[in-house]
Amino acid sequence: MMRVITVKKPGGAEQLQLSEREKPKLNSGELLIKVEAAAINRTDIINRQSSSGYLNLDVLGIEVAGIVEESGSDTAIEPGTKVMGLVNGGGYAEYAVMPADRAMIIPDNLSFEEAAAIPEVYLTAYQTLFWLGELQEKETVLIHAGGSGVGTAAIQLARQLADAHIITTAGSSEKLDFCKSLGADHTINYKLQEFDKEVLAVTDGQGAAVILDFIGASYYRKNLNSIQMDGRWILIGLLGGAQLENVNLMEMMSKRIQWKGTLLTPRSDQYKEKLTADFAGRALPLFKQGRLKPVIDKVFPMEEVQEAHRRMESNQNIGKIILKMD
Amino acid sequence: MMRVITVKKPGGAEQLQLSEREKPKLNSGELLIKVEAAAINRTDIINRQSSSGYLNLDVLGIEVAGIVEESGSDTAIEPGTKVMGLVNGGGYAEYAVMPADRAMIIPDNLSFEEAAAIPEVYLTAYQTLFWLGELQEKETVLIHAGGSGVGTAAIQLARQLADAHIITTAGSSEKLDFCKSLGADHTINYKLQEFDKEVLAVTDGQGAAVILDFIGASYYRKNLNSIQMDGRWILIGLLGGAQLENVNLMEMMSKRIQWKGTLLTPRSDQYKEKLTADFAGRALPLFKQGRLKPVIDKVFPMEEVQEAHRRMESNQNIGKIILKMD
Repeated sequence: MMRVITVKKPGGAEQLQLSEREKPKLNSGELLIKVEAAAINRTDIINRQSSSGYLNLDVLGIEVAGIVEESGSDTAIEPGTKVMGLVNGGGYAEYAVMPADRAMIIPDNLSFEEAAAIPEVYLTAYQTLFWLGELQEKETVLIHAGGSGVGTAAIQLARQLADAHIITTAGSSEKLDFCKSLGADHTINYKLQEFDKEVLAVTDGQGAAVILDFIGASYYRKNLNSIQMDGRWILIGLLGGAQLENVNLMEMMSKRIQWKGTLLTPRSDQYKEKLTADFAGRALPLFKQGRLKPVIDKVFPMEEVQEAHRRMESNQNIGKIILKMD
Repeated sequence: MMRVITVKKPGGAEQLQLSEREKPKLNSGELLIKVEAAAINRTDIINRQSSSGYLNLDVLGIEVAGIVEESGSDTAIEPGTKVMGLVNGGGYAEYAVMPADRAMIIPDNLSFEEAAAIPEVYLTAYQTLFWLGELQEKETVLIHAGGSGVGTAAIQLARQLADAHIITTAGSSEKLDFCKSLGADHTINYKLQEFDKEVLAVTDGQGAAVILDFIGASYYRKNLNSIQMDGRWILIGLLGGAQLENVNLMEMMSKRIQWKGTLLTPRSDQYKEKLTADFAGRALPLFKQGRLKPVIDKVFPMEEVQEAHRRMESNQNIGKIILKMD
């Protein structure tokens, strides 16, 4: 048996509980991992709240870092190897199963907590900036929610891999200062400033070539004002609502906007394998060199998972919230 | 001097008139072409109606076929060569200037009228299917307005270059039969059938990987129903209006839709050069072999330009409407 976190019934953080489950069975091509740390993601909160989540498993959690305990047939990774990566649910647990082609070897200079802070947000930031956003060297990118997990990863990747012109929004000067320290060129406090006016001001009226939009409806008009001709607008979250009442398609055509909706978690195993391989090749050396740094907000012991969820839901965090197994 | 078509004042087809202008001056990198045929495009109608068109020139027309009369410096095409291609306005004229890197040599088996029917619609269909739509071999594509100029070109290109599964809509059985003869697998009369239900029926509920949308607002809901996961939805016309009242972004995210607005005419010279070169390399040999065939609806003499515009505005045409210079 092993200790895990489950949901009593769909609802608030109070529904999270410590339970016991059988250790998962290993299939061909999989690794059984002794989990040292897992990270909290918004998708976990959505799954906690809804009875129709992504998962078949009743254990939350989509990313872990730990030590390979057992390797299935057809895997090249030996027991004892320290790995991090995405799992198909079941991450808030002492043991988790991971498709081996999704495991990334943890650079020596990183702790398990730091490693658990990498997969979801860096893969998402990498996918949205480069695969979907097609961000080119020196282009301007507008990264909303700059203090979030994906935001902090995106700022670093845009800086280190594309030397981009980076504009970021956040809701406190503490978060904005931190974004600058990660490599943002311009920061905008969305509570005090009209972000579209600022974006146009610092781009000579051109706007941003790529927008990472975690907000949706409430930012629609300002994002439209902020995007440049042929811009790629990646919709990856709906913190500001989903419902738009007034869309003029001529604006989309005349600016030749590419508007792309995406979610990482429900994508296929093949997609995640390909993304992991591409990301690992380009980014892992930069973690080793210290040019990319996982951003940890706070580490909670497994027993305090309710606190961990509440912290994310109140948007207090800068970077990732981590669950430490013991 | 030369004879041209101009617009008296913004308005209906009755505003078109035969006038005289100076023969255009040639710059470096340009060709002076004796125009044998020009084609009518919707963008000409928009320009005729509005005083804020794309053009600096007051002569309509964005594509021609003819004979090179004079070659500017820095051009490799000799006088006497038969060429077709996009011009930056001024196509409804006895002489027009074309950037030389946009000229395509007319295959021997085609007349000038046939050649004039190629550039705009084939380049647009090629750009939307392959550059923006990223249509892959054997994927399903939904081509609206199958009887239109771009529609007839897109059906042929999807058949010949991607062996795609092609579904097309049009408003008469005559048009639909013609679409089948060009290579469409399934045809839908949008006046008699719910196209989204038909698309889902012939794709086992999966929908189309790529949609060429010339319609916009009035087809929004049904296109959303018709697109598959990770589908590319290319917005290229607004015949059904621009204004949407009810957009739920969650639908766009959960289907991971890529929604791309585009227009060809206002794009840069460099873009058109690159597109022309890519298209010419892949498609011109197929015109020579007769596997691609320009579709001509009707040829009008220059003097009957008002009739030519009225025919397009009433959506009677199947394929291209051509203006013959004399």
